[in-house]
Amino acid sequence: MKKRRIIVIGGMAAGPSAAAKAARLNPNADVVLFEQTENISYGICEVPYVISGEIDNEDKLVIYTPERLSQEKRITVKILHRVEKIITNKHKVVVRNLSNSEIKEYEYDKLIIATGASAKKLNIPGEDCRNVFHLRNRDDAKNILNYIKSEKPKHATIIGGGYIGIEMAEAFRKTDMEITLLHRYYFPLETFEPETSEVVLEELIKNGINFVANAKTEAFLKSKDEKVEYVLTNSGSFETDLVIVAIGVEPNVSLAKNAKLRIGNTGAISVNNSQQTSNEDIYAAGDCAEVTNIVTGKPAYIPLASIASRSAWIAGENSAGGRSKFDGAINSSALRIFNLEVARVGLSSKEAASARFKVVTDIIVSNSIIPLMPDNKKVTIKLVVDQVSNRILGANVFGEGGAVSRANVLAAVIQKKFTVKDLSSLDMIYAPPFAPLWDPILISSNSIKKKLT
Amino acid sequence: MKKRRIIVIGGMAAGPSAAAKAARLNPNADVVLFEQTENISYGICEVPYVISGEIDNEDKLVIYTPERLSQEKRITVKILHRVEKIITNKHKVVVRNLSNSEIKEYEYDKLIIATGASAKKLNIPGEDCRNVFHLRNRDDAKNILNYIKSEKPKHATIIGGGYIGIEMAEAFRKTDMEITLLHRYYFPLETFEPETSEVVLEELIKNGINFVANAKTEAFLKSKDEKVEYVLTNSGSFETDLVIVAIGVEPNVSLAKNAKLRIGNTGAISVNNSQQTSNEDIYAAGDCAEVTNIVTGKPAYIPLASIASRSAWIAGENSAGGRSKFDGAINSSALRIFNLEVARVGLSSKEAASARFKVVTDIIVSNSIIPLMPDNKKVTIKLVVDQVSNRILGANVFGEGGAVSRANVLAAVIQKKFTVKDLSSLDMIYAPPFAPLWDPILISSNSIKKKLT
Repeated sequence: MKKRRIIVIGGMAAGPSAAAKAARLNPNADVVLFEQTENISYGICEVPYVISGEIDNEDKLVIYTPERLSQEKRITVKILHRVEKIITNKHKVVVRNLSNSEIKEYEYDKLIIATGASAKKLNIPGEDCRNVFHLRNRDDAKNILNYIKSEKPKHATIIGGGYIGIEMAEAFRKTDMEITLLHRYYFPLETFEPETSEVVLEELIKNGINFVANAKTEAFLKSKDEKVEYVLTNSGSFETDLVIVAIGVEPNVSLAKNAKLRIGNTGAISVNNSQQTSNEDIYAAGDCAEVTNIVTGKPAYIPLASIASRSAWIAGENSAGGRSKFDGAINSSALRIFNLEVARVGLSSKEAASARFKVVTDIIVSNSIIPLMPDNKKVTIKLVVDQVSNRILGANVFGEGGAVSRANVLAAVIQKKFTVKDLSSLDMIYAPPFAPLWDPILISSNSIKKKLT
Repeated sequence: MKKRRIIVIGGMAAGPSAAAKAARLNPNADVVLFEQTENISYGICEVPYVISGEIDNEDKLVIYTPERLSQEKRITVKILHRVEKIITNKHKVVVRNLSNSEIKEYEYDKLIIATGASAKKLNIPGEDCRNVFHLRNRDDAKNILNYIKSEKPKHATIIGGGYIGIEMAEAFRKTDMEITLLHRYYFPLETFEPETSEVVLEELIKNGINFVANAKTEAFLKSKDEKVEYVLTNSGSFETDLVIVAIGVEPNVSLAKNAKLRIGNTGAISVNNSQQTSNEDIYAAGDCAEVTNIVTGKPAYIPLASIASRSAWIAGENSAGGRSKFDGAINSSALRIFNLEVARVGLSSKEAASARFKVVTDIIVSNSIIPLMPDNKKVTIKLVVDQVSNRILGANVFGEGGAVSRANVLAAVIQKKFTVKDLSSLDMIYAPPFAPLWDPILISSNSIKKKLT
């Protein structure tokens, strides 16, 4: 029997997961993974914690070397190989070996596209200076760490107040650098509820971050040695030693586009719940692909590592002959900002309104454990509910303790379409060191009930 | 219009909650609460943390004084009043005023029984000595605290290795007393899984508790001043300055029995999902009543404060004219033992087998957050699953961090009858400071899947 040839494009996160899953499921599969850089399987989300010093060695972020992945998972890993074209009608990919520029064609029975996403660029002069960084792969991480080590910058300017911008601001701040955080809107983290964004802003300011709101970066002023010295914005100009551009990511879809695969309205590759693209022999997974938002039932673009891993498993299994389905995601994410925990699950009130739900929200402040205990912290929960069905559509949780863990309970609740009544009937744990008699989740459900009747 | 007369028997936890709820819901109700002691609305679960010193003042455990409850909640509170009889056909209760021994009858339209539970006794000579304590009400708590203050005991013997026994052992140990913990079985906490009980035992021993397994207390040897000096067991005799008897509780049902209300097989008062007893004008709630175990669908006796509060709200609402239903409970509870967190939700494997499920279990050890981060701790999850339906029936979670919060996610999952597949598809949060890429819950569901197919 002929071996099933599975080719995987991309080695960052989803690619290796999908390849490993395919090889494990089908011993009769011949799995080849192409990666254009030298590195695969890298913990990019942990880079800020290397910068801050919480993780002591950048090498530890390498989850698999190409050699280990090959040996342990029965995969042929080809680094420094760039896939340049997919020829769908011949079931072939055209690959350039970047170490010698040779071009070769490889045949596939099933193809998995895991090309990930790229950092968005400002596209202004100076963005290629040696002290301006994006953060998307290991080279970016190493460049930042090397620059800090050799040049000992005293000031960093972060452009963008989303997840990565905030994590980087905190990381640099912990090394005692002066930080300016330029953000294009009034509040940071605009996909969170305004109440959450407001406390995040307070926490940033409290910890000495110079947050500049409504700031549009207009130009970089360079020094003679090809370093940006000033960042010019509509809200003033800022002297700096180092710039991080963290204004979001965009899916890498050029290969898919050229192969005439369907691209969704979000700009990412459209897939069904088997992770199949519009070509039945081609799968896509990770940050290059869309995912079903379970709350709205519609395709969404949510480039998160948790979703990338899960979609990669599905693509890997199905490419190898499995029949797995991916329910989708609800956009569960969380962030630590110094002493503050913030988490969001499901839809924000704005997203819920756009999806034409009749939105009711309620916010409560309660205790993480019983108030008499010394470790008690305040926890705030904002629920987003549909007035028609009484379904919980989304939630934000924040505080100094226990926010993220409670958001995970709410994530299950939202994913499985609980109503407010279902939520308020949950039999949650009461124990003085861990939770109050009425958990904040129960208090929030009892509170919003009053607005629904 | 005649006012609806609602009488509540019992002022500890469920009684005041039910009374307050009834008075709030129905402004036309005349609510009277009878309590035989001087104290109402007391945080008995927090007493161990007063003994250990974590809570600095026992007075703080009084949630409402009788005066405050009367004033703020529009309830007539009668302390030192003991209800001696319920005359169901006359809708009356016979009440003795304990301060002057006067007996009086009160008429009710609706009656709520919230008589709670009592500590089980050993029923051996010496149990009434002044250094032998049970822990069930404020007087017990004050007696223990006064005895410690005045007599400065150096050694405590705890009889019983359940929740209260363990919490008391830890509390006394934290004041530097020597502790002997006598338990009738091999492992403590026998309603938990054996793997959990085993780590609890290790943690007790590690912290200097002398745990004596398979010990049956046979007699107390008294000194001349009416203090127990030696506890005699089948496993040796133990010199001691103070004894706590914590061998469980039993529901206070004598009033209900005399009134010919139906008592369930568990020994507690039988109620429907409106908290009505077999007499439609009499409700029962809290530790004197049964509760539906949602997993088995059968009545159970689960004397936990969280369930008492929720059943009390239902009884209060319905006695006042409401139509609330109580879904029941799944027996969610947790305990801190020094540095260890343990939690259980749903059925244990033994309970599941008794309920005739075809039980499959699986246990995994994983990381509470990403392993590279300095605060990472090990978390263990044991799942109990029904092989026929693939439903999650129960779980134990333990570790040094994040056990209880994960148990609450599993509680929602068990209560709403998720299958293993539902569990493994949860979109849980990934963020390096809070959770690994694959949360231990997802790892546990992926692991048990292999035993089910």
